[in-house]
Amino acid sequence: MKADLLIKNALVLTMDDGLTVHDKADLVIAGPKIVEITPKAAGRAKKTIDASGKLVMPGLINMHTHAAMTLLRGLADDMPLDVWWQKFIFPLEQKLLDPEFIRCGVGLAALEMVRSGTTTFSDMYFYEQEAAEVCSRIGLRAYLGEGVLDAPSPHHPSADHALNYTKELWSRWRNDPLISIMVAPHAPYTCGKDNLIKAKALANELDLPLHIHVSETAAEVAESRKNSGLSPVEYLDSIGFLSEKVIAVHCVHLGKTDIRILKERRVKVVHCQESNLKLASGNAPIVELLDAGITVALGTDGAASNNNLDMFDEMDAVAKVHKMIKADPTVMDAQTVLKMATSEAARALGRQDIGSLAPGKTADIIILDLNKPHLLPLYNIYSQLVYSAGGSEVESVIINGRLVMENKRVLTMDEDEVLDNARHMGARIRHEIKNS
Amino acid sequence: MKADLLIKNALVLTMDDGLTVHDKADLVIAGPKIVEITPKAAGRAKKTIDASGKLVMPGLINMHTHAAMTLLRGLADDMPLDVWWQKFIFPLEQKLLDPEFIRCGVGLAALEMVRSGTTTFSDMYFYEQEAAEVCSRIGLRAYLGEGVLDAPSPHHPSADHALNYTKELWSRWRNDPLISIMVAPHAPYTCGKDNLIKAKALANELDLPLHIHVSETAAEVAESRKNSGLSPVEYLDSIGFLSEKVIAVHCVHLGKTDIRILKERRVKVVHCQESNLKLASGNAPIVELLDAGITVALGTDGAASNNNLDMFDEMDAVAKVHKMIKADPTVMDAQTVLKMATSEAARALGRQDIGSLAPGKTADIIILDLNKPHLLPLYNIYSQLVYSAGGSEVESVIINGRLVMENKRVLTMDEDEVLDNARHMGARIRHEIKNS
Repeated sequence: MKADLLIKNALVLTMDDGLTVHDKADLVIAGPKIVEITPKAAGRAKKTIDASGKLVMPGLINMHTHAAMTLLRGLADDMPLDVWWQKFIFPLEQKLLDPEFIRCGVGLAALEMVRSGTTTFSDMYFYEQEAAEVCSRIGLRAYLGEGVLDAPSPHHPSADHALNYTKELWSRWRNDPLISIMVAPHAPYTCGKDNLIKAKALANELDLPLHIHVSETAAEVAESRKNSGLSPVEYLDSIGFLSEKVIAVHCVHLGKTDIRILKERRVKVVHCQESNLKLASGNAPIVELLDAGITVALGTDGAASNNNLDMFDEMDAVAKVHKMIKADPTVMDAQTVLKMATSEAARALGRQDIGSLAPGKTADIIILDLNKPHLLPLYNIYSQLVYSAGGSEVESVIINGRLVMENKRVLTMDEDEVLDNARHMGARIRHEIKNS
Repeated sequence: MKADLLIKNALVLTMDDGLTVHDKADLVIAGPKIVEITPKAAGRAKKTIDASGKLVMPGLINMHTHAAMTLLRGLADDMPLDVWWQKFIFPLEQKLLDPEFIRCGVGLAALEMVRSGTTTFSDMYFYEQEAAEVCSRIGLRAYLGEGVLDAPSPHHPSADHALNYTKELWSRWRNDPLISIMVAPHAPYTCGKDNLIKAKALANELDLPLHIHVSETAAEVAESRKNSGLSPVEYLDSIGFLSEKVIAVHCVHLGKTDIRILKERRVKVVHCQESNLKLASGNAPIVELLDAGITVALGTDGAASNNNLDMFDEMDAVAKVHKMIKADPTVMDAQTVLKMATSEAARALGRQDIGSLAPGKTADIIILDLNKPHLLPLYNIYSQLVYSAGGSEVESVIINGRLVMENKRVLTMDEDEVLDNARHMGARIRHEIKNS
């Protein structure tokens, strides 16, 4: 054995297709890959972690956020959506967004995500080159999409400018093991037909995912019907936008025709339960989407509408809220929900090498301490993770074979500096608000 | 100053009627009481805690649980309610409930509650004498109600037996600073008129709260209407049961008349959001109850239907889910929700000395570390606590002036022993299920 990292004596939840669980196993990692999962590994490794009494599982995948918005966490809560957006968030973004803001906010988000067991995230925001540099340095896997809008954005005078920037991002990061680029038209109501088609063409040219907000609010759907006679999903289909490359975020307000189209075009859906609740956006028909065989993953959305990036919190909300919506405690069982945060999310990204653990797969792994009062007794590991656990159980994090957090200490960043920067930026933001 | 405990340099969230916040203050505690909150305390204390950069706030109050059911956590999830109850929970309780089970389960629950910042809880279960002893030893404030049912329970052959036991509990604990006794008829559908009236008479005689489940499911309300032509609330009122002493738990299915009656009789309501979601019980009209001026507090319910006792999780769910129910992101703001878990809960218990911090009040206090990536920047402390924080932020816990947890170490119990006992009991329960 020529191993870099050996994790010994762990309870291993693989999340593979057969949902294999190893009661006690060793995991052997060489370079970025898992090479063996075995009752007892032979030989030695450069680094050994004793995981006796610990749980080893795939890192969680947060399929939709706006990472730098951690800096706006809790700034404007409990408000009507239009006041939240028009009076607070949008003017602040116009004023504040610059490379420094992004580095600071993404650093804070990355620290929060690593600490709570997220090993991959999908982002839609601005200055994603800065985000890429931060994530690359920290060792966090990221899918980054530069927001494309018809109107001038805090970063780009035009959609073409944002699309060119996306292409540049792609050419800088195309061979990076951690950073992937997406094409990210913001939404059908902020991107006209021409720009949506340009975005799709770029995604086809470079073979990239298309990340887009779709049907988040009833108002959006009503506006779409008024303008085109079509729902946002019908409209996107009518212009040839939809395909298996499309990651459609929110999908709260869908009709039967929408669901049929999403299925036929093999669109991937991202559900942001906590954000939908907090902004009172509505009830996404996730049970119906799953019944239709559509791939659904989970996202926290930005910290301004959640207000954290903890995927354990998100799973808990998803599992519970849909029971209430459907008036049926058997729907959205814990196993289904955990898949949505791991293996199904990997499927949404078109990747077979993450989201589950097996020899040959990429080592994106988290180690949890279950030796806590709120996690005992242990009858059902899926229930425990979804209904009882939180991000704070995560002790160690391995991404692409690299140990990023060990025993609650993040090895790849200066945590105090990240927190200090966030505090300073918070003070600057408070000052801006006072003077506006 | 003759102080036992001095907490220095804290951000102090008082939750008093004026919602006073002290940016930096010292808290002086003598015996069980807060004697001073001041910018700079003079003199010394037996014990000093430097809380620079920390938050000091009232301990949280969990107004409804079945503490020993922590031992059934995650045992039977994602099932129809009747299967959950009739096939799993009830037969197991019949078989397993004994003093040892209660000591083990309450010990585990108490450890979980203390660690997540709960300083007072209300319980309805069996063998509450055991629960009282465990809580008294650990130093956790508890309101304990022995379940009264018409049918034989795992502990009592009859309702009279349970009521006599309640009276004995009262006489043993009546002068205890931490343990209070409640009269706890299980529900109008499990207690006939005679037993409800006997329970009320006992509560009147001893001046105790009456803790009862009311209108948890639609089936319960339909059954009540079929039997008496009245809703459960109308029925309880018709037999003279309701008063300001009554703590009505759940109140999910209420009509306008019910809300009017609850208001007129000054009944206190406990909302168990996460349990209602997980069991798909329905949407409690909490916004309407608050609008009517009814006192509403929060409870986790038992760990078998939650699956943890973390009041921070509960607050997050309450604040978010009602926004969705009312399609209005402005309802159930963070401040309102935090009141429900502190000062309003104290009001529901008829106590003015806990649930908020001021000189003369009882020192039930928690200290939180906010120096974490998911809690920065800090714009709004209420938002941060309700939407971003979890029980794991709690570092130190003071109950009745006694330091129960310091820097994450519980001082009043052997944590390893509690966890070991829970594991052993879990193994015994698994064995029982296999052989049944």
